[in-house]
Amino acid sequence: MKRSHLVAAVVCLGAALPAAAQFRKLPEDAIKHRQSVMTLQGHYVGPLFAMANGRVPFDAKLAADNAEILSTLTRLAWVGFVEGTDKGETNAKPEIWKEKARFDETARKLQDDVAKLNAAAKTGNLDQIKAAVGAVGQTCKSCHDTFRKE
Amino acid sequence: MKRSHLVAAVVCLGAALPAAAQFRKLPEDAIKHRQSVMTLQGHYVGPLFAMANGRVPFDAKLAADNAEILSTLTRLAWVGFVEGTDKGETNAKPEIWKEKARFDETARKLQDDVAKLNAAAKTGNLDQIKAAVGAVGQTCKSCHDTFRKE
Repeated sequence: MKRSHLVAAVVCLGAALPAAAQFRKLPEDAIKHRQSVMTLQGHYVGPLFAMANGRVPFDAKLAADNAEILSTLTRLAWVGFVEGTDKGETNAKPEIWKEKARFDETARKLQDDVAKLNAAAKTGNLDQIKAAVGAVGQTCKSCHDTFRKE
Repeated sequence: MKRSHLVAAVVCLGAALPAAAQFRKLPEDAIKHRQSVMTLQGHYVGPLFAMANGRVPFDAKLAADNAEILSTLTRLAWVGFVEGTDKGETNAKPEIWKEKARFDETARKLQDDVAKLNAAAKTGNLDQIKAAVGAVGQTCKSCHDTFRKE
């Protein structure tokens, strides 16, 4: 391998650091990371569910703001699901790592669903938002039913 | 007040819900919210500090990705600093509410600093990133020194 290629390979390795290397203390920091994301996702999706169900009045700006924030947040949790971090203060089931491809697919689906919710929220049309929020809720539930302890 | 104005006022009130109304259980949920944001801010700013200090190799894509994520995250903590939530499992000092204008000014400064960091990171120029990260670090430190318990 030429030196320039070796340098490039090392730099790429840096960019694609394994998830575990992103946390100082395992499993604690990885668990705290993903739980922090879940807490915030709940905070910002909550008002969207409430508007979709008619429990609170529709607020187009709040809906658009929250959907935009969710489009960032829903990219962040996954790096925290480091192999072997199903021990400790966590509700993560071992199935996450036993059925990794299925878990990753659900993670991708959530991000797709939230991208659609974000687009719907920008239109300010409540019916479109309701449909998109419904899909997000189903993806949350399906993932929690399969991969989260009671 | 005409009915249409009354409706408009109520709708505006909904949009500008007081921070306290956004959390079901106080102080627990507000504390958990802001601590979750701080955890994630630390995770995404950490590699930027490390690159700026030369502790890890510069990775332009990682720097840009993290700065972009920070530009969302640094907007989120503030709603969690609900009046009266300096009790419980928190390092928040009562000074946050005693010197609210100063605290709010620091919150705004952090968001400005991170907007500059985000712009610098998009250039891919390490020197610009170093300067911008330095400003972010100083704002973090100054706020923690004044408003966070040891």
